[in-house]
Amino acid sequence: MGRWEPNGRGRLERAALELYQERGFEQTTVAEIAKRAGLTERTFFRHFADKREVLFWGAGALQELLVSTVARMPDSAAPIDAVAAALEVAGSLLQERREYSRKRQAVIAANPELHERELIKLASLGSAMAEVLRRRGVREPTASLTAEAGIAVFKVAFGSWVDETTSRDLPQLIRESLDELRSVTARR
Amino acid sequence: MGRWEPNGRGRLERAALELYQERGFEQTTVAEIAKRAGLTERTFFRHFADKREVLFWGAGALQELLVSTVARMPDSAAPIDAVAAALEVAGSLLQERREYSRKRQAVIAANPELHERELIKLASLGSAMAEVLRRRGVREPTASLTAEAGIAVFKVAFGSWVDETTSRDLPQLIRESLDELRSVTARR
Repeated sequence: MGRWEPNGRGRLERAALELYQERGFEQTTVAEIAKRAGLTERTFFRHFADKREVLFWGAGALQELLVSTVARMPDSAAPIDAVAAALEVAGSLLQERREYSRKRQAVIAANPELHERELIKLASLGSAMAEVLRRRGVREPTASLTAEAGIAVFKVAFGSWVDETTSRDLPQLIRESLDELRSVTARR
Repeated sequence: MGRWEPNGRGRLERAALELYQERGFEQTTVAEIAKRAGLTERTFFRHFADKREVLFWGAGALQELLVSTVARMPDSAAPIDAVAAALEVAGSLLQERREYSRKRQAVIAANPELHERELIKLASLGSAMAEVLRRRGVREPTASLTAEAGIAVFKVAFGSWVDETTSRDLPQLIRESLDELRSVTARR
């Protein structure tokens, strides 16, 4: 019975981001997002639990992608290389949404509560990566340190990617960030 | 005019932690904490803004200690060594409060909101360390990567310290954790 809705989620996401930028996250209501997208509030709630979830629904998919990529790496791969490979795969996917990611980051940076949510999602990614490394037989504390190092690499690369004006893509920045971590920690 | 209060803060802290363990953080009221400590609610609020702050007031002092230690390191110190030295100083201080730290961590682990707060405090530590490294002339992304690497090292060392039954102290675990990060990221 429902109307045909071409990519309702995408329309809602775009509308929400526009409004968060124009009015601020706090000041935007679900009713306004639905209206801007030309959809009903009911449709909104079929896609998202609340207005915050519009910004974070991708985090679960990203985590699954990272975990499954680490899990599929050959046994011979060093833990840090398995993590780096997964981060590059995720980086390629995010690269396709660079403009969206930049706008989203501007909204998150403007709101402490959203910023905290982002930090918590990153920490969950770290725990999930440590868990999949342990399932691959990596012991503690190696598993946790490798996962946390991966998160540090990703965080810094992502920060450059959304901030800066260079044309380097995210997988490239991730590789450079890992190289930098290697030289930072190298014994002199 | 006020009564003589030997270490009111310490008594309140101890009373709060006991109650958080016995009843859970959510179920404990400020009135109960004050009563257990033999002090008034008014005295509680002279020391702490709310019952959550009892668990986190030390984070600000820890951050200042880390930042000032990094700032005082000789110019010749490599960034990662400056960060590691600061973490060991902080580790020595925490070592004196091991029993308290373990109990506190059990309370935090049992409450998702407190766990999130802890993650956010750790992220703030990372930002503050990156900032002091930049003031020492360390460029980006080296400053951020070094700081994030330091946080990864600290997080894993702290996790072992509050969890495990070994007799190794926190500064020792921090050194081992950094060595482990070095071998994890070493090119093979």
